[in-house]
Amino acid sequence: MIERGREIERTIYFSDAVIAIAITLLALELRLPQDLASGEIVRHLVGLLPRLYAFLISFWVIAAYWMAHHRIFNCIRAYDGGLLRINFLFLMWIVLMPFSSSLIGGYGDLQLPFVVYAVHLMLATFTLSWLGLHAARNPHLMEPGVDPRSFRRQYSHRMLAMIAVFALAIAASFFSTTVAEFTLILLFVARPGLLGRRASRGVT
Amino acid sequence: MIERGREIERTIYFSDAVIAIAITLLALELRLPQDLASGEIVRHLVGLLPRLYAFLISFWVIAAYWMAHHRIFNCIRAYDGGLLRINFLFLMWIVLMPFSSSLIGGYGDLQLPFVVYAVHLMLATFTLSWLGLHAARNPHLMEPGVDPRSFRRQYSHRMLAMIAVFALAIAASFFSTTVAEFTLILLFVARPGLLGRRASRGVT
Amino acid sequence: MIERGREIERTIYFSDAVIAIAITLLALELRLPQDLASGEIVRHLVGLLPRLYAFLISFWVIAAYWMAHHRIFNCIRAYDGGLLRINFLFLMWIVLMPFSSSLIGGYGDLQLPFVVYAVHLMLATFTLSWLGLHAARNPHLMEPGVDPRSFRRQYSHRMLAMIAVFALAIAASFFSTTVAEFTLILLFVARPGLLGRRASRGVT
Amino acid sequence: MIERGREIERTIYFSDAVIAIAITLLALELRLPQDLASGEIVRHLVGLLPRLYAFLISFWVIAAYWMAHHRIFNCIRAYDGGLLRINFLFLMWIVLMPFSSSLIGGYGDLQLPFVVYAVHLMLATFTLSWLGLHAARNPHLMEPGVDPRSFRRQYSHRMLAMIAVFALAIAASFFSTTVAEFTLILLFVARPGLLGRRASRGVT
Repeated sequence: MIERGREIERTIYFSDAVIAIAITLLALELRLPQDLASGEIVRHLVGLLPRLYAFLISFWVIAAYWMAHHRIFNCIRAYDGGLLRINFLFLMWIVLMPFSSSLIGGYGDLQLPFVVYAVHLMLATFTLSWLGLHAARNPHLMEPGVDPRSFRRQYSHRMLAMIAVFALAIAASFFSTTVAEFTLILLFVARPGLLGRRASRGVT
Repeated sequence: MIERGREIERTIYFSDAVIAIAITLLALELRLPQDLASGEIVRHLVGLLPRLYAFLISFWVIAAYWMAHHRIFNCIRAYDGGLLRINFLFLMWIVLMPFSSSLIGGYGDLQLPFVVYAVHLMLATFTLSWLGLHAARNPHLMEPGVDPRSFRRQYSHRMLAMIAVFALAIAASFFSTTVAEFTLILLFVARPGLLGRRASRGVT
Repeated sequence: MIERGREIERTIYFSDAVIAIAITLLALELRLPQDLASGEIVRHLVGLLPRLYAFLISFWVIAAYWMAHHRIFNCIRAYDGGLLRINFLFLMWIVLMPFSSSLIGGYGDLQLPFVVYAVHLMLATFTLSWLGLHAARNPHLMEPGVDPRSFRRQYSHRMLAMIAVFALAIAASFFSTTVAEFTLILLFVARPGLLGRRASRGVT
Repeated sequence: MIERGREIERTIYFSDAVIAIAITLLALELRLPQDLASGEIVRHLVGLLPRLYAFLISFWVIAAYWMAHHRIFNCIRAYDGGLLRINFLFLMWIVLMPFSSSLIGGYGDLQLPFVVYAVHLMLATFTLSWLGLHAARNPHLMEPGVDPRSFRRQYSHRMLAMIAVFALAIAASFFSTTVAEFTLILLFVARPGLLGRRASRGVT
């Protein structure tokens, strides 16, 4: 059992390292060209605002994913091959986040990049949800004392809420990408639980 | 209680990974163009000096933040959603450091980039201070044996000192950005405790 | 014995950090140029497809290496200088992966880049295999309860299968690089065990 | 005492993360330009050889530093502010390695970049040596059972050997940078202990 502890920890720390790197690389999008004349600086800083907005959304989305990942793995004490593969699939979506984020940072006023971004987040949410369901379906992987059914129910609700926001944002993008981008803020406003409230209840 | 230990550790290691990546990315600013003629190398190396100065300041500022973060989390044994969110806000400022650092590396002789940099550091210090206060206000999050009041007092003094240096630097930048940049060295000269002296007393 | 545990863990976490960074840097290849006209976006996104394919192959190859590395180190409880050196050699191949991956992402229709990539993967597989053999030949490095002979046999088979796929892909590249690239998918189709099935059996 | 264990571990893992990132970023120097004609690929790959040589030297130098850092921290069980500061100074040299490495990768045929690189390695070695001496002078920081005097003596010899190689390489660079670069290989040939032999003796 201690063995299992060590092994699941290696998976957790590896996932954390990948998430930490991806979240830090997001900021590489924010750059001024070199050797600007002093009068051009303000204009270029203002020109970075759409990228800053994309950075902010993506940073907090990855933060929310980390907290959700955290919550799932708090309930897991062992892994199987399926869990590892689903976890790597989730990490793949995380690794691709700086790319999709740079798409909406650079071309957020166009619909296609926005839809790519929203579908990307949807796939990541589906995968994380799948990770939780896989654990719930294999109770020997879970910490004793966790009820798989309530775990699964609680989980599904949260993921459905996130997916609904992405679907709404995609629908909105057919009318206005500006409105669609602001729709994503619903992720944090409408369900603050995504940013850790439930975690607090679970722990303290 | 062991559970809590493991979970708070995951938060700590994730924070450390983000800080480690940001501190390493600072050096990416230091680059020579390819295919210079041999006579141009010295000139270009000299031209890197402002970037090297920005690197040095930012490296040791992040080092000081890591040590302060370290000191706070040494006193914390559990977390709640608020702690996680404040910690992520702090990490967001860390992740943005390579950007602000590149601003003063490239345009340190202009006031605006310097003010952006100093305000950025001020916000990071406020956030770290908020993290400490949040823990002090929720004693069930703290290690037994830590006195929240003395923790808070000690904390506030150090943060106020840092913020005073940033305010002084911003004020100085209205007269000379060179003077303003050197003001930041006060962070390390005037309060060596920022670079770990208190930590040593606490531990050994 | 606890000492040994801590030291081997530092080696494992260091390896994990290197692998996590390399797998995340793979995605840096996926970028659109800035300031495209809106009509050019689709064309450039389509133009990224070969790079996306290279990313997918390399991501899952590194994932498979991580899982194999994981499986070997699950059986190791101590290290010697030889183990450290072989592990660093393996990490060197991992660190070079983003380079080779960018070669086939940018020039996958030419034979030379493809052969460089396949030989690179072959060398990485050889090195990982050498790591396992080194441990099997020094039983005092292994966890008690692991049979070195069955460990070695099981190991050799898996590595030989991977190397056979790379050899086949190199042979195929003399006729068509497209066919050769698809041959690599055999890594995952023909031997799903590479992606963790055995791990599950070993653990649960 | 457990407390001390956890805190020193955070320092170790943070150091490992910084070293892991720096060693991985070394490979970013190896890149082909995009959209080369097929006939130009071979020429450009050959043109990367000096960068590959710089990568190889720097990769194994950082690997040797990691192992030396590892050996020192195996003997340390607590830290003080001085130790943290010296460790950050050492990490600063590590973070700057990709820069110096790119200097000799791009301009290795000129003396100045080579001397910058060799002096850089010298400073890193001095700092690591200082770290060991600081621990040896403060026996309460060391693991019980480690003899500070033999630790210090053994340490100083190894560091002096490394510094002698760098001094020799700098001297050689006045005659030929090619000879000077090959001198660095002495680090690994003349003192294989740098690459872990002593570690093995210490552990098994």
